[in-house]
Amino acid sequence: MSKPLIFVTNDDGITAPGIRALIEMMNQLGDVVVVAPDRVHSGKGHAVTIHQPLHLDPITIDDGPQKEFKTNGMPVDAVKLGLAHAVDRKPDLLVSGLNHGVNNSVNVLYSGTMGAAIEGAIEGIPSIGFSLDNYDWEAGLEAAKFYMKKIASQVLQNGLPEGIALNVNIPYLSLDEIKGIKIARQAMDKWNETYDKRTNPFGRDYYWLNGNFTYEDKGLDTDVYALKNGYVSIVPVQFDLTAHKVIDQLRDFEK
Amino acid sequence: MSKPLIFVTNDDGITAPGIRALIEMMNQLGDVVVVAPDRVHSGKGHAVTIHQPLHLDPITIDDGPQKEFKTNGMPVDAVKLGLAHAVDRKPDLLVSGLNHGVNNSVNVLYSGTMGAAIEGAIEGIPSIGFSLDNYDWEAGLEAAKFYMKKIASQVLQNGLPEGIALNVNIPYLSLDEIKGIKIARQAMDKWNETYDKRTNPFGRDYYWLNGNFTYEDKGLDTDVYALKNGYVSIVPVQFDLTAHKVIDQLRDFEK
Repeated sequence: MSKPLIFVTNDDGITAPGIRALIEMMNQLGDVVVVAPDRVHSGKGHAVTIHQPLHLDPITIDDGPQKEFKTNGMPVDAVKLGLAHAVDRKPDLLVSGLNHGVNNSVNVLYSGTMGAAIEGAIEGIPSIGFSLDNYDWEAGLEAAKFYMKKIASQVLQNGLPEGIALNVNIPYLSLDEIKGIKIARQAMDKWNETYDKRTNPFGRDYYWLNGNFTYEDKGLDTDVYALKNGYVSIVPVQFDLTAHKVIDQLRDFEK
Repeated sequence: MSKPLIFVTNDDGITAPGIRALIEMMNQLGDVVVVAPDRVHSGKGHAVTIHQPLHLDPITIDDGPQKEFKTNGMPVDAVKLGLAHAVDRKPDLLVSGLNHGVNNSVNVLYSGTMGAAIEGAIEGIPSIGFSLDNYDWEAGLEAAKFYMKKIASQVLQNGLPEGIALNVNIPYLSLDEIKGIKIARQAMDKWNETYDKRTNPFGRDYYWLNGNFTYEDKGLDTDVYALKNGYVSIVPVQFDLTAHKVIDQLRDFEK
């Protein structure tokens, strides 16, 4: 019997420690094809390259059994181009990450890690984005490795509901300290944007994004709450953005 | 009594005919501040600029009463930076577009026009993205102008449910031919990606995205169906991506 085919991507670039850890774990579960950006892409969300040509170059980074390609595209491009030209059949699982930094709450919208996973779900592939609540590339990844393998195994075995990707956030704690997994909803928080305004040597102003995250959602069933309390959070994410609940409230527009 | 403050942006760039038409209409409804990209951004979705400085430069393009700024950022950046530095109070309405090209169905995810509108909704501003089912910058915009003004007026008067942005798509028909407005859901279609593979003069392969849209959703309540039948479609869009319906199906992960 052939092993499951697992497609791996990320948004921190193909050499980031997070994706190397994810590849290591996925090699234990199936045949792995990696298609990932050749550089760091932060905040690219669901952006896609339309009017520029893309490259897809085979690359060998370590002595693992996986096949790997790097691309000059963004995370969603890596998925689209990789599914079209790097695999010979539809993958059984798509995993994205491990992101160096948390993607809970509204961050799911800005996240290229999750953009790639949502693209996988659109393509009908059970898909998971993994993020770690730590931005340091030197962070220890042992607990994350354990949970990535556990959750990916479970998805390979049982699948996912149609059109759903999982947004998995892992607290930066040791395996002993992590209390388990919580299925959660996306917390309805937001960034409080501030920009640091400076003037360049030629007298022109420029701005650096410099926001603070505001924790407004006090719910006990959110991804933010789960993480704060030492749990791995899993939010099932859909790509149907329709607010079905309010459709009937808006009928006046039809008049 | 002061007039409502209307924030205008787009993803085709500040000189595109679509945004000029939108500005013209909004000037009839309130005080207008425009913050828009200095170039075309296609497919940027909800991407945000994190590690690059941004500019916000006053600009005068026509003799209208609006205040205008161009930025080197993407559509979501234009909203974030503009709300922080181009307005002195929270706008009563945010409008994005008129996009030269349709943003129905799953295209909402890739659309910078809708990325900007969704960002407005996150900021608690009633927000609308407008798109025209025609990609030609020379396309006639009279019917679109009529519906943009009509829908924006109605939102200014009645507001929108919290956390909701409207995704408005306008068929490329004359005013007489358009049958009216339909509140709709996002059609669950997808792109069937193909990439045109070429080889450059140095022997290296490259790929151009070249997809076909596949109409798989046969529902009569979708935005795709409404447009095909001569209606302006309005989909209420939310930024909570949680698939609440499946949360209980996933409890096994907690074991």
